Amino acid sequence: MAHTLDQTVLDAFEAILGSAGVITAEADRRPYETGARYDAGRAAAVLRPRSTAEVSAVLAVCVRDGIAVIPQAGNTGLVSGSTPSAAGGDVVLSLDRLARRFDLDPVNRSLRLDAGFRLSDVNRMLEPHGLFFPIDLSADPRIGGMIATNTGGSRFLRYGDVRRNVLSLTVVLADGDGTILQLGSDLRKNNTGVDWKQVFIGTSGAFGIVTEATLSLERLPRQSATAYLVPSGPEAVPLLLAQMEERLGSLLSAFEGMSRNAVAAALDHVPSLKNPFRGGEIPDYLILAEISRTSAPREGEEPLSDMLEAVLAEIWEQAEAPLADAFVGPPEEMWALRHALSEGVKHKGRLIAFDLSFRRGDVTAFCATLGAEIAEAFPGIAVCDFGHIGDGGVHFNLAVPKDSPLWSDPGFEARLRDRVFEATVERFGGSFSAEHAIGRKNQSYYDRYTPETIKAMAEGLKAMTSPGTLGSVRFGRAAVDNR
Amino acid sequence: MAHTLDQTVLDAFEAILGSAGVITAEADRRPYETGARYDAGRAAAVLRPRSTAEVSAVLAVCVRDGIAVIPQAGNTGLVSGSTPSAAGGDVVLSLDRLARRFDLDPVNRSLRLDAGFRLSDVNRMLEPHGLFFPIDLSADPRIGGMIATNTGGSRFLRYGDVRRNVLSLTVVLADGDGTILQLGSDLRKNNTGVDWKQVFIGTSGAFGIVTEATLSLERLPRQSATAYLVPSGPEAVPLLLAQMEERLGSLLSAFEGMSRNAVAAALDHVPSLKNPFRGGEIPDYLILAEISRTSAPREGEEPLSDMLEAVLAEIWEQAEAPLADAFVGPPEEMWALRHALSEGVKHKGRLIAFDLSFRRGDVTAFCATLGAEIAEAFPGIAVCDFGHIGDGGVHFNLAVPKDSPLWSDPGFEARLRDRVFEATVERFGGSFSAEHAIGRKNQSYYDRYTPETIKAMAEGLKAMTSPGTLGSVRFGRAAVDNR
Repeated sequence: MAHTLDQTVLDAFEAILGSAGVITAEADRRPYETGARYDAGRAAAVLRPRSTAEVSAVLAVCVRDGIAVIPQAGNTGLVSGSTPSAAGGDVVLSLDRLARRFDLDPVNRSLRLDAGFRLSDVNRMLEPHGLFFPIDLSADPRIGGMIATNTGGSRFLRYGDVRRNVLSLTVVLADGDGTILQLGSDLRKNNTGVDWKQVFIGTSGAFGIVTEATLSLERLPRQSATAYLVPSGPEAVPLLLAQMEERLGSLLSAFEGMSRNAVAAALDHVPSLKNPFRGGEIPDYLILAEISRTSAPREGEEPLSDMLEAVLAEIWEQAEAPLADAFVGPPEEMWALRHALSEGVKHKGRLIAFDLSFRRGDVTAFCATLGAEIAEAFPGIAVCDFGHIGDGGVHFNLAVPKDSPLWSDPGFEARLRDRVFEATVERFGGSFSAEHAIGRKNQSYYDRYTPETIKAMAEGLKAMTSPGTLGSVRFGRAAVDNR
Repeated sequence: MAHTLDQTVLDAFEAILGSAGVITAEADRRPYETGARYDAGRAAAVLRPRSTAEVSAVLAVCVRDGIAVIPQAGNTGLVSGSTPSAAGGDVVLSLDRLARRFDLDPVNRSLRLDAGFRLSDVNRMLEPHGLFFPIDLSADPRIGGMIATNTGGSRFLRYGDVRRNVLSLTVVLADGDGTILQLGSDLRKNNTGVDWKQVFIGTSGAFGIVTEATLSLERLPRQSATAYLVPSGPEAVPLLLAQMEERLGSLLSAFEGMSRNAVAAALDHVPSLKNPFRGGEIPDYLILAEISRTSAPREGEEPLSDMLEAVLAEIWEQAEAPLADAFVGPPEEMWALRHALSEGVKHKGRLIAFDLSFRRGDVTAFCATLGAEIAEAFPGIAVCDFGHIGDGGVHFNLAVPKDSPLWSDPGFEARLRDRVFEATVERFGGSFSAEHAIGRKNQSYYDRYTPETIKAMAEGLKAMTSPGTLGSVRFGRAAVDNR
């Protein structure tokens, strides 16, 4: 594959997108070539369409000329999914100018919009209507990327993932014709055939580029209360979750776990945080629980913080209670610590990060088991896990000191990753990618853990939809070039 | 296609299923040949496997011998999806003995089970655990059929459809090998490739037979309150819904609309119901609103019925209120009327029934517009609509008196159906099948309203998964035999 593009191809792109729509200068390309955490590659050009029709036209050119295309939305992903390869032949197709259409239907609680809007902008524009798109993240992705990775986040327990909250998609295929598909509409119920939009959710743009969507919206919560819970031991966490759900039902909107290492890293490295613990002593493991409701406060109603306090007291007073300690506190401060964990753990060393999921009863057992095994097999590594215990997800972050002797072993990282994934998938029946999707980072694990029948079906689907080279992931059986 | 089966084929079936697993006698076949409302066909045999392995073995035989297979679960559908054709060549593959595995994981709130369990049995077994599968219907289908049709129901507003509440599927393909696919697992978050299970949800078994599933469960509500609302006019209904959601948020768990004709039919024909209206006067249009919560009642807490009453008073007291009248009453009685509508309207004449959906703001406008048009074009027909206004769904039932002169026109029913579907799809942008899927009944509308690109993709998917003749629906481009 050519590493630079012919002038005739660049001219064709400019004719479609205008000169501001085609970036070739090295300095201007840089932000599109560099990922949020790990990755950096080299793009032959960056294309910035402003409409579905422009995506269709440039994608048709790319497929006809055999140019590999990497779709990119907010470029906030953590699996090397949205950056070009190091080899330099890819074109990045950025959605950053595809952010014009924004059609709100408040009665339908739906929003039809271009896929290039940022999540924060969407929610800022929805706030006056008392509505929001209920996916809560530490990052600020664009909608197209959230759909391509099927993002989950901290309120999954209440609202589910992106898949659950998408009503329709507009998709452009890499089929040489730039075919545009309208999949679904703004209806909530519609069972008139295959729900094709599902194929384009969570598949990293390999089967087509999402350019527009209709999102289902939720009403903004108007009351919430949060508490830190200290479980009586790692094995008590699932029981604590079950007891909270039993008493609070769907009021429970988050149940997030945080290891001592992760909390300490955040407190050490994020100066705006204050240490909320008695004597500054961080517990071994901490749960952030949130309850919330969308109804307005009513006269004489028990405040949610009192309700949470009372329920925690009930649980704590039981014989053999799963709860050792708990305190209710201000939601902003408590969430600030939770959202700072990602930033904090980055300072603990070089991070080898895993985004795993398990049955809800298995998350803490996995962390305890693997934590012990890693301490023995790879001395010096700090396990800084945190995650969404309420839905079985965990960010299993391993911080390796920059000067660790482990780095002198060139096979070390691969060996460590294999060990974690083997335990996750084979021993615990978990997932090697809970909410970050595949990307280049997890390609070899897709290849290893996906049954051949499923790979063959994915290959057939690829041939049927977008036979052109699109995205960073290879879903089929073909041998992977680890570019 | 042969209308009877060779003895060698029947022997092969008996060798796999035992003699109780193969029904050929006419009287014993009858219940499997007769649908819940409209349809009756003729089966060459009824096969009753007890396990996924048995489904696999018999399906392989059928495909190799070119025998058309109709999968059947509870046979409660309303679109002629689960009964054999009138021609007599189909084999019915019933799931009624596939009801053994029932593995509950209460901490994970998930249930792995065989697809032949009835919804009522599942919920009866879950009740002691405070859990349920939150799809609320007037019928009592089996789980496999609910998945094949992606059932919605009366609590969609809170819990969504079957698609939202399924974590994994086991599927057997009609590919000649009886290939068994395990799609997903009991994880809530898992983004490691195409979410293939989606293809088998809501597609009437055409791409494979669902034999097992993992369901995501919800906690049973512990408090609820209901009210009948009389909107100030048809155009006020969407506004009333929006105002209820604004004040009650996610407490609102149902918002069901009922026309006067439907309510009157139920009161006339279901003797156990009592007329709840002042002076027996049924309003033109009625909403059943329910609020509920899963948390236990707490000391000093305002009862939900008081809260509902107060909110309705607030709405009613506004200038130009969308609410003309309202009264809070016992949930069992109010739901009994709602659930009797289906039965009631059957007595109003011969029913031509439509299961439609719209943007939430359009449902009542559609009913008003089409009601007037039908009254003019087809005199004597009574519109008995009711439905799930909260999610845009409506059961648009037209009762034609049995002695109506309209029946003497042989093209009448087709002309009427075309008229309703044209208005639904072309004028209102709605769906011709909200929650009953396609079946033979809606095949011609699938053919008419599905873009050719989508049909071609469905055809490719069919060839890739189950090239054998499976189910009553043809998703591809091929001309349909209206058997």
